[in-house]
Amino acid sequence: MEIGIKAIGGYEEVGKNMTAVRAGDEVVILDMGLNLDRVQIHGETRTETMESLDLIEMGAIPDDTVMGDLDGEVKAIVCSHGHLDHIGAVPKLAHRYDAPIMATPFAMELIKDKISWEKRFKVENELQTVEPGKRYQVSDDLVVEFVHTKHSIPQTTTVVIHTPEGAIVYALDFRFDRNPVMEDPPDFKRLRQIGREGVICAVIECVNVETEGMSPSESVARMMVNQTLHEAENEDVGVMVTTFSSHVARIKSIVEAAEAMDRRPLLFGRSMDKYITTAEKLGIVDLPGDIGIYGHPKAREDIMRKVMKDGKENYLLIVTGHQGEPGATLTRIANETLPYEAEPEDQVVFSARRIPNPLTIANRYSMETKLRMKGARLFQDVHVSGHAGKQDLYDMIKMLQPQHLFPAHAPLDMMSGFVDLTESMGYRMGEDVHLMRNGQEMVIS
Amino acid sequence: MEIGIKAIGGYEEVGKNMTAVRAGDEVVILDMGLNLDRVQIHGETRTETMESLDLIEMGAIPDDTVMGDLDGEVKAIVCSHGHLDHIGAVPKLAHRYDAPIMATPFAMELIKDKISWEKRFKVENELQTVEPGKRYQVSDDLVVEFVHTKHSIPQTTTVVIHTPEGAIVYALDFRFDRNPVMEDPPDFKRLRQIGREGVICAVIECVNVETEGMSPSESVARMMVNQTLHEAENEDVGVMVTTFSSHVARIKSIVEAAEAMDRRPLLFGRSMDKYITTAEKLGIVDLPGDIGIYGHPKAREDIMRKVMKDGKENYLLIVTGHQGEPGATLTRIANETLPYEAEPEDQVVFSARRIPNPLTIANRYSMETKLRMKGARLFQDVHVSGHAGKQDLYDMIKMLQPQHLFPAHAPLDMMSGFVDLTESMGYRMGEDVHLMRNGQEMVIS
Amino acid sequence: MEIGIKAIGGYEEVGKNMTAVRAGDEVVILDMGLNLDRVQIHGETRTETMESLDLIEMGAIPDDTVMGDLDGEVKAIVCSHGHLDHIGAVPKLAHRYDAPIMATPFAMELIKDKISWEKRFKVENELQTVEPGKRYQVSDDLVVEFVHTKHSIPQTTTVVIHTPEGAIVYALDFRFDRNPVMEDPPDFKRLRQIGREGVICAVIECVNVETEGMSPSESVARMMVNQTLHEAENEDVGVMVTTFSSHVARIKSIVEAAEAMDRRPLLFGRSMDKYITTAEKLGIVDLPGDIGIYGHPKAREDIMRKVMKDGKENYLLIVTGHQGEPGATLTRIANETLPYEAEPEDQVVFSARRIPNPLTIANRYSMETKLRMKGARLFQDVHVSGHAGKQDLYDMIKMLQPQHLFPAHAPLDMMSGFVDLTESMGYRMGEDVHLMRNGQEMVIS
Amino acid sequence: MEIGIKAIGGYEEVGKNMTAVRAGDEVVILDMGLNLDRVQIHGETRTETMESLDLIEMGAIPDDTVMGDLDGEVKAIVCSHGHLDHIGAVPKLAHRYDAPIMATPFAMELIKDKISWEKRFKVENELQTVEPGKRYQVSDDLVVEFVHTKHSIPQTTTVVIHTPEGAIVYALDFRFDRNPVMEDPPDFKRLRQIGREGVICAVIECVNVETEGMSPSESVARMMVNQTLHEAENEDVGVMVTTFSSHVARIKSIVEAAEAMDRRPLLFGRSMDKYITTAEKLGIVDLPGDIGIYGHPKAREDIMRKVMKDGKENYLLIVTGHQGEPGATLTRIANETLPYEAEPEDQVVFSARRIPNPLTIANRYSMETKLRMKGARLFQDVHVSGHAGKQDLYDMIKMLQPQHLFPAHAPLDMMSGFVDLTESMGYRMGEDVHLMRNGQEMVIS
Repeated sequence: MEIGIKAIGGYEEVGKNMTAVRAGDEVVILDMGLNLDRVQIHGETRTETMESLDLIEMGAIPDDTVMGDLDGEVKAIVCSHGHLDHIGAVPKLAHRYDAPIMATPFAMELIKDKISWEKRFKVENELQTVEPGKRYQVSDDLVVEFVHTKHSIPQTTTVVIHTPEGAIVYALDFRFDRNPVMEDPPDFKRLRQIGREGVICAVIECVNVETEGMSPSESVARMMVNQTLHEAENEDVGVMVTTFSSHVARIKSIVEAAEAMDRRPLLFGRSMDKYITTAEKLGIVDLPGDIGIYGHPKAREDIMRKVMKDGKENYLLIVTGHQGEPGATLTRIANETLPYEAEPEDQVVFSARRIPNPLTIANRYSMETKLRMKGARLFQDVHVSGHAGKQDLYDMIKMLQPQHLFPAHAPLDMMSGFVDLTESMGYRMGEDVHLMRNGQEMVIS
Repeated sequence: MEIGIKAIGGYEEVGKNMTAVRAGDEVVILDMGLNLDRVQIHGETRTETMESLDLIEMGAIPDDTVMGDLDGEVKAIVCSHGHLDHIGAVPKLAHRYDAPIMATPFAMELIKDKISWEKRFKVENELQTVEPGKRYQVSDDLVVEFVHTKHSIPQTTTVVIHTPEGAIVYALDFRFDRNPVMEDPPDFKRLRQIGREGVICAVIECVNVETEGMSPSESVARMMVNQTLHEAENEDVGVMVTTFSSHVARIKSIVEAAEAMDRRPLLFGRSMDKYITTAEKLGIVDLPGDIGIYGHPKAREDIMRKVMKDGKENYLLIVTGHQGEPGATLTRIANETLPYEAEPEDQVVFSARRIPNPLTIANRYSMETKLRMKGARLFQDVHVSGHAGKQDLYDMIKMLQPQHLFPAHAPLDMMSGFVDLTESMGYRMGEDVHLMRNGQEMVIS
Repeated sequence: MEIGIKAIGGYEEVGKNMTAVRAGDEVVILDMGLNLDRVQIHGETRTETMESLDLIEMGAIPDDTVMGDLDGEVKAIVCSHGHLDHIGAVPKLAHRYDAPIMATPFAMELIKDKISWEKRFKVENELQTVEPGKRYQVSDDLVVEFVHTKHSIPQTTTVVIHTPEGAIVYALDFRFDRNPVMEDPPDFKRLRQIGREGVICAVIECVNVETEGMSPSESVARMMVNQTLHEAENEDVGVMVTTFSSHVARIKSIVEAAEAMDRRPLLFGRSMDKYITTAEKLGIVDLPGDIGIYGHPKAREDIMRKVMKDGKENYLLIVTGHQGEPGATLTRIANETLPYEAEPEDQVVFSARRIPNPLTIANRYSMETKLRMKGARLFQDVHVSGHAGKQDLYDMIKMLQPQHLFPAHAPLDMMSGFVDLTESMGYRMGEDVHLMRNGQEMVIS
Repeated sequence: MEIGIKAIGGYEEVGKNMTAVRAGDEVVILDMGLNLDRVQIHGETRTETMESLDLIEMGAIPDDTVMGDLDGEVKAIVCSHGHLDHIGAVPKLAHRYDAPIMATPFAMELIKDKISWEKRFKVENELQTVEPGKRYQVSDDLVVEFVHTKHSIPQTTTVVIHTPEGAIVYALDFRFDRNPVMEDPPDFKRLRQIGREGVICAVIECVNVETEGMSPSESVARMMVNQTLHEAENEDVGVMVTTFSSHVARIKSIVEAAEAMDRRPLLFGRSMDKYITTAEKLGIVDLPGDIGIYGHPKAREDIMRKVMKDGKENYLLIVTGHQGEPGATLTRIANETLPYEAEPEDQVVFSARRIPNPLTIANRYSMETKLRMKGARLFQDVHVSGHAGKQDLYDMIKMLQPQHLFPAHAPLDMMSGFVDLTESMGYRMGEDVHLMRNGQEMVIS
């Protein structure tokens, strides 16, 4: 049986991930993501009303018109986890395929949310919620398995497609965290077992391949958050922390630090509300009862007035806006369009890295400059990455022993680090390490 | 009484620190350090036979000929801690002053060692070992106090000179580690008290002023070391860790990790021997009995042959050479001039940052390239800094409330971050923040 | 007579230049500039309706409230040339002083234009147009001389204030171009003579002090423009060049290249119209008769339609938008909101450097990405700087032999290169090289 | 007839270029270069005594053992020009092939020189000097043509191999200089004609593919050299210029500038002697009679003493050492081991870029620091590149219209810019743009 790996998106950029795996004439689609950069440079804010082909032309979503060349029938659309660069194009593309969408509960809730905002297309695919650690028969020949792993959002999976020829592993967005703050460590035992059973191909992320060494555990981030919040001189000043709203483990650490400081944790922002409420509803995290969550503008303003009146020193604000996004809570505080005021000595902790995109850098620069002009103290990079470092990638490949490797989730220049790494392990580019461009298929016979 | 702060060295570079504090006509010298970069570019390896004036002209040691302009008598030479950029010029300069050298026990042992190698000058100053937390009367008017702090070498102190006009604080090389791996946290209580008593001037380091936020605790480094050593796939391969030989806390963490891995820790290198043996002798650290320390070339080669024969998987080597220094153990392993062989999959952990100096970068590049050509896996930056980050500096200044600030231990462009920081706190350059050049004195009346 | 140099703006940033020179109780103000970055980050587009104090608080214009501390009467406001960072705050600040505004004709036209747009303040100061090479008595004791120099805008001057104590030289924004494309070379003879007569202080720009060597002549830029336009394969494609609209010499070179290529040069953009029309009116430049200048949106669209119809290969478009400014012609072509279309193989020549400001970098990135997506070929950095390189600064100081030096037009970290340079010439920071902060005065007695 | 392009060296690095082109069972080898970096990091200085296999293992020369897999007979070894990364491995590898070495006269003289120093191998291949613009039958089916082009060394050629299937073009190391200082411009007419005749494959350099725009002409460099030498204040000081000794056109410009300054030009260094003497002998350049060339240490010291005695202001020294190479003239002047002294205000012009290799950066840093400590003024980057910029590559490809493209002379990450460029022209990686690793062959049928 012929095995084909078709690159649809994410093979020339970080973003809009989409891969099709073909075994004989049956196909599984992996991820349907958004490329936020291309949305930003076009100044688009309402993608929900746009046509797929316009978004494809902008480079904002994968160009799945190439699926027409693929000689097979799509049996399932599988999302590895709930980040936008993996699910963001579902509302624009999924309806073209007569196949269920499969994802873990947390990701599925986010997919449903995206679909509910969509204005142009009706997405009526079956939504099949799956369980990490479980295997699902999606056609006569194909079984999809979801191996639990760690990333920076709950319920991330390494997806394995079992074919009659052996396994195909899709390892985008993972880290090897053996001391996580939440949920179990990755299922190393199963990964090793899959390796022993025989892996034909592995599609592997390259986001952090240039990071020498291993990616630190989330417990390192928790320690850094604790040290920053407990140890700076901050008894009588305002303290805000900004982080990814989908990073539930990080928010948990921040909330716990707030409790230990005798400050009431308040969460601000629509996305903060969406992610945390969903995580609590699904039982993924259990935050203390006195936490406040303020997703709506009106509620946000009311509680901010109360905080200013009661005294900022009684609260710890957890806010959106770590990338200086226009409209996010921290950005609006910097712009003085909210009733919460940043004052001299107030602390702003960035529990996130700055995304190295010119538009984001500009947004951060504007926001930080304004916060500094008010006298606020900025604490940056209180953060660890959610992506595998070079030596984690080494260990993943060592466990899986794949016959063929496909670097993904990166532009070509970043893939060169993956080539160097894998060649140091005995692979060879052009022989068993394959660089692909969006739209190309590699057939393994 | 007139107070003078005289910059001798370290006000135009990172290195060769030396400051003179004058109260009326009594003077205390703080540190006498070496500028390693200037030794390196001149290709000098035997500074012990060189004249002071030649080293001054090379920029390798502070130009203390400017002391002649200073209207006062030197009462003490005080070393804040035992790093070379603070004690390295003692053998070349101390003999010119009729004053005791004061330092904590660990630093004093290193000073004695330096003096013992000196070939050109007889250093016969009284060597007065001091205790952190204690105060010493050095003249009628002056008392020197050693406040315990943390850095990347044991027994580091923030030095306080008490004058009739108030205190002068010399805070070069410190970090605010509240969860140290070894020794107590800094004596924050005393620092705050000194602040309340009144600080006229503070001389403060700028090495990491560009690091937004706080410097992580050594316990973060320990966690990173543990995760790297325990979690990479390394059961049956050779593992080496390289770090600063004076960084006893780090070496302790590495040794403990080795024990937990059931590998015997072996320490290699002359400086590794000197520092660790000294630390053990002084009771600073207590390493397990089965540790091996190999400072002598012959002993080093013998044990390496044994390791190769017994199996590398039973040992963990802790080696010098993290900067690719010619002659260091790791460098020589890379060069294949020792009987220990780096093989494919062997792991080399750099528990140190790469010093951003062109000659060091070249040395590291050569060594790393050779190790990679042998198939070794490199784990880099498993490390945290020993210097205060920007927000630690903020807190130090907030505790001390000094009337005047003097940035030090940096070239002018790095000092600009210190100016920005202190101006955000209400100070003003040219008024109470003073930029000085080597050789200049600032008089506070 | 006491001489005072008071830093008002431009001593902590590149932008909003303003210096006051006091001789006894008479004062001359030099430049009143805008800090565009601070306007941008606040998202302001209509500064003409804003209050001075609001703009001061934003950091957009110099804080001249410190002029109240200055014990003297303002006798003249002198603008060295017509760039916005030197004249942009005139409409907001000049009316506070009962003194004439002095500038060369080209700068004066631009000042008048700025004043005409101002909505909040009436600027009724006398406008005194001056001639390069001439001296003007502005009070009993003070004479202001305008020495012709070169920069990237016509009629730039090095301003010299002659006092009874000697000369004070204000050398912001100059380059030593001995082979200019337009106007004479700098008046070296007069600079040397002023040096021999005796210079007390010189305020000198630091913008390019980190550029080792000399700044290339504008004739190098002309040669680069020629080679790019004549030699790339472009016979049958569209060609656009974008450059600074105030850079009349550069535009002259581009227009001449267009003529030599048998393409009709068309200039687009409101500022392009303003600057070039002014330069022609003043007899500074004489462009060929068939050149088209299209400042108005309607005219712009009409001619673009004609170009598309006639064939792009008959025209060369010279457009605004080299920094991706929203609303500029090139930006709008990239955004497809104009009737001119960028097509595959079309050439876009950037005869300008990218300004290293995060907001500009983001704008350029967005525009370039869109142009590339259309298949356009981008030719970047076909440009030389209008600011003095390190070795030009050396020669300026060597000619003037000033007793005291004041670096300006840069943040502190950039000034460190100036300190290194001047110390290599025998000056010494803190003695005869003075670093100042906005608002500070240095008195030379 | 099957056409094979076999990458031997230079497909994973900048250096050690070697490619084999196979047409049926006949093979032409293109270049046999050295990778200087790998020689440097191993601290080797006497490669002439080393075995090929040792140099291969070090990565210093191409691993031509892969030639064994190639099913064909080597008919010619063709060197495109005389730089070491193209001819440096000839003494180590050529003797293994029973085929003539073909090169233009200047390159051939350098090849002979290399062979004469070789201690281990006898290189007895026929040496066939060729003429640019001519075609040479090397076997029944193959004709090799040398198309004149420009680079930074005389007599550089773009090599074309004519096969029964069409032409194969080898365009490593070229620039499109239409206004050269010496020799004719590239033979564009012939390149276009070859394009029309039909090009199967082109192997193209990527060294400067990241340079947006075109590479400036050597006449720009001449103008920059002139402006630097004539316009800085240097009448009564020492002036040295350092550049590539093989860059005869640059040296010509410098010599002419010296004449115009009424300074006698003196050339120093063994390689300066070798290259210039060869160029004069071959009639490539005609330097004025009063030029002095000093290749031998003794002669060098004698004339330096004379210069110091006569007055430096009468001479202009052209010296080796632009990369701080140990033993080069400028390096030794910095180290004070020659009788010529660098003094305050003396000028040192670097008419070369700094090669971005860590060891070179370290060498330059050491040398520059020492020169600056002596008060010398450094003029850097008075230089233009000899390699094609991105838009020159575009034009080359547009002229040749090759069916298949092979980027070379770069590591993989640098090749990504080539992929982006060619994909903007309608090619596609993996289809007609082929990334290869050293040792791989791509067969075009």
